[in-house]
Amino acid sequence: MLRFHPLCSPLPPSMFFFRSNSYAKTLDFPSLSFYKTRFRSEMGAYSTISDSSKLLFRQLFEKESSTYTYLLADLGHPEKPAVGRLPCVKSIISKASTSKADLLVEAGDKIYFGNLFLEVRATPGHTLGCVSYVTGDGPDQPRPRMAFTGDALLIRGCGRTDFQGGSSHQLYKSVHSQIFTLPKDTLVYPAHDYKGFTVSTVGEEMLYNPRLTKDEETFKTIMENLNLPYPKMMDAAVPANMVCGLQDVAGKVKEPLSGSL
Amino acid sequence: MLRFHPLCSPLPPSMFFFRSNSYAKTLDFPSLSFYKTRFRSEMGAYSTISDSSKLLFRQLFEKESSTYTYLLADLGHPEKPAVGRLPCVKSIISKASTSKADLLVEAGDKIYFGNLFLEVRATPGHTLGCVSYVTGDGPDQPRPRMAFTGDALLIRGCGRTDFQGGSSHQLYKSVHSQIFTLPKDTLVYPAHDYKGFTVSTVGEEMLYNPRLTKDEETFKTIMENLNLPYPKMMDAAVPANMVCGLQDVAGKVKEPLSGSL
Repeated sequence: MLRFHPLCSPLPPSMFFFRSNSYAKTLDFPSLSFYKTRFRSEMGAYSTISDSSKLLFRQLFEKESSTYTYLLADLGHPEKPAVGRLPCVKSIISKASTSKADLLVEAGDKIYFGNLFLEVRATPGHTLGCVSYVTGDGPDQPRPRMAFTGDALLIRGCGRTDFQGGSSHQLYKSVHSQIFTLPKDTLVYPAHDYKGFTVSTVGEEMLYNPRLTKDEETFKTIMENLNLPYPKMMDAAVPANMVCGLQDVAGKVKEPLSGSL
Repeated sequence: MLRFHPLCSPLPPSMFFFRSNSYAKTLDFPSLSFYKTRFRSEMGAYSTISDSSKLLFRQLFEKESSTYTYLLADLGHPEKPAVGRLPCVKSIISKASTSKADLLVEAGDKIYFGNLFLEVRATPGHTLGCVSYVTGDGPDQPRPRMAFTGDALLIRGCGRTDFQGGSSHQLYKSVHSQIFTLPKDTLVYPAHDYKGFTVSTVGEEMLYNPRLTKDEETFKTIMENLNLPYPKMMDAAVPANMVCGLQDVAGKVKEPLSGSL
């Protein structure tokens, strides 16, 4: 389940980080304190062909759960707010997930950070509420586009569909209608990877994904026969995910921060 | 120890992959067979500001040894040779390492792949023979530049200096004279990471690297007091590294392929 945490300040936020699994927060994980500063324009970023788009992008990996977390910031934004105001981090999750968060989003919503934006696409199938976030299509937006596909599409794989309202039929339709319709050079960044990959593209997955390149019936058969074990962190992760990972020291679930973005 | 394996064909090679630790080959590691095709121009690549440079770049991660492997290809090269000719992969390593490889390189050498090139910079200190590879400086080369720093500079760290002819003094000088003199937006890609980072920049390391931002005496004191355990794969990795990882099925070391690039 992919959730967004826009990092806010008194000024409009120009930075986001998001991760798939709230449980990953409690593990030994790179601290965002490394980014507690104003990002200066000389900080390297994955460049974009559009000279007017200056995206700072970082991909972080948590080994125990094989989870990726992503940090995005608009370096072109004149205010370049600091990352250090973590207490006012807001959480975002899809309305369809029936989880709690500060903001609930639906397909078609645009999430702005600075002058850049992410478009919300509904990609249920791993769970009922899964969404993918895709960078905007426009002259000032990053090129090539980037699709954060959560647990829907993984590199040369996909999320399992036997839990939490999962459906192979839905997942197949989601990927084919929402991800595989993007330009082939769109970068694919998943929530997890177990094989050592960090990124793929729509074009590569349309050619080489061993599951989603099959017809739907064959795909369903594959998914029914995965015989995967019960996920090891399931009993901690799902309750945490449902409230965007907010827990007190004793492990009791807290309510998320409320307030507008 | 960073080594190069240009993937060749009857035509000049336009693709490289390189990894730090030959031992990583024997573990469950993403197979390059996924790339057994002609790369088509619609494959996504990290774009560059220079429209005439089209670098395909992939970063792969091996969890057990926390090792990164990198794949680079020049998609702009008219021939776009296939990756499937692994039997004629050649190996490259620094002459100063006294290891065996098909090609031995020295500081200042340029390694071309297609129309793109990597510049060899001597960065001893973790071992006597360490080098870093930096993408070329030129209008048709990738921007921002990318520095593959091996075990010299890690993200918010550096390689240990207590083995294999290591020297804290040398490492300090190497990083400061060869890496920290690059443009601040140069992307830093290390051989290993144990904290979940995938990339950094010269500017970030010059500000936040907890070791290399100190003066040399303080740095040496830090390095003398790391109290690190004996590396778990040392006894397998070092002999393999010295012959670029070529071993037969029974584990006996083979001689590397000879021949020109």
